[in-house]
Amino acid sequence: MKVELENIRPEEIERKSFEIIRSELGDKKLIPGTEPVVMRCIHTSADFEYADSLCFSDGVIDKALNAIKNGACIVTDTQMAKAGINKRALAKFGGEVYCFMSDPDVAETAKNNGTTRAQASMDKACSLDRKLIFAIGNAPTALVRLYELISEDRIHPVMIIGVPVGFVNVTASKELIMETAVPYIVARGRKGGSNIAACIVNALLYMLDGSR
Amino acid sequence: MKVELENIRPEEIERKSFEIIRSELGDKKLIPGTEPVVMRCIHTSADFEYADSLCFSDGVIDKALNAIKNGACIVTDTQMAKAGINKRALAKFGGEVYCFMSDPDVAETAKNNGTTRAQASMDKACSLDRKLIFAIGNAPTALVRLYELISEDRIHPVMIIGVPVGFVNVTASKELIMETAVPYIVARGRKGGSNIAACIVNALLYMLDGSR
Repeated sequence: MKVELENIRPEEIERKSFEIIRSELGDKKLIPGTEPVVMRCIHTSADFEYADSLCFSDGVIDKALNAIKNGACIVTDTQMAKAGINKRALAKFGGEVYCFMSDPDVAETAKNNGTTRAQASMDKACSLDRKLIFAIGNAPTALVRLYELISEDRIHPVMIIGVPVGFVNVTASKELIMETAVPYIVARGRKGGSNIAACIVNALLYMLDGSR
Repeated sequence: MKVELENIRPEEIERKSFEIIRSELGDKKLIPGTEPVVMRCIHTSADFEYADSLCFSDGVIDKALNAIKNGACIVTDTQMAKAGINKRALAKFGGEVYCFMSDPDVAETAKNNGTTRAQASMDKACSLDRKLIFAIGNAPTALVRLYELISEDRIHPVMIIGVPVGFVNVTASKELIMETAVPYIVARGRKGGSNIAACIVNALLYMLDGSR
């Protein structure tokens, strides 16, 4: 087999990729204002299902951008998502990224309470005195715990990115979040991931700062 | 809508997930010995396409396991993949994970040569005097550069995990790697990602060490 490589300059690769995505989406209708998020999820996964599965609460993009501009911080449930978020772009607005999953006190609390570390991480986030955006790409138990903490008025996220991936309680945990009054971006169904959580945060950051 | 959550203990979630995956695969034929890798890719992505797209060179699983047992190190093309690899499990065998993407000298070389940082990272890996497994989840340019370095006899990977994701030269770069004599695991087509690269490494580690 003859393998044909396209000759393209490094700085052109992303632009060209987005061109291909736009072209393959054809006349697919996306919610106005959400296109950069949907397209970056497809860019990250090569999976066009995100054009259908991503759900946005009313006005969530504007609310998220405002929160980031005002120094909101990100709480994630994996070191992978933390690694993938453009922390330099976030820092320009005063925000930082927290992931408590590897913290010894979180492991200890989870063990004592018979919960996942993701649940214990959400409890720990209650003590943060910052505007918080949650970016959950792995653990449905994190979303379920967030739902409980919101219901108990113990935490007030400015927004939730609910995109865990998997087979046990994943779909249900996302539906729960969409029942709260908290602004959300959720990938309905089983799909998602730390890469998707990170790329949604990055899509928002790049909407604010084209220069990165 | 009434959301129904399944009551399940944290330590049961992964086992149950794999049960669901096995059941939904039905009588799908997988290459004997590759099942843990295929199933973990589906577990990580909720995408059953990996049951068809993953390609394995002859005997690659045994070769990879032997290499890891003998202290092979992992070179990745993203900090996300590095974050996702179980470094503690790898360290039990003496291996470690390298990612040169954020190194100032790599940025400098890439800029001077008009290449991507991923290409410059592969060049830097040539200087490592270790057995190397490459886990490429993002940059097709890394795979193309690896192909060139292998052809020029400048690098001798013990194995390549070729699972970049995307739209420009991604499919072709994977076909190139499958033309070399280097053992490979490749996800044919556009799909893949840092999460897939990391989970393939982890699947191999867990085959060696059930206890993690």
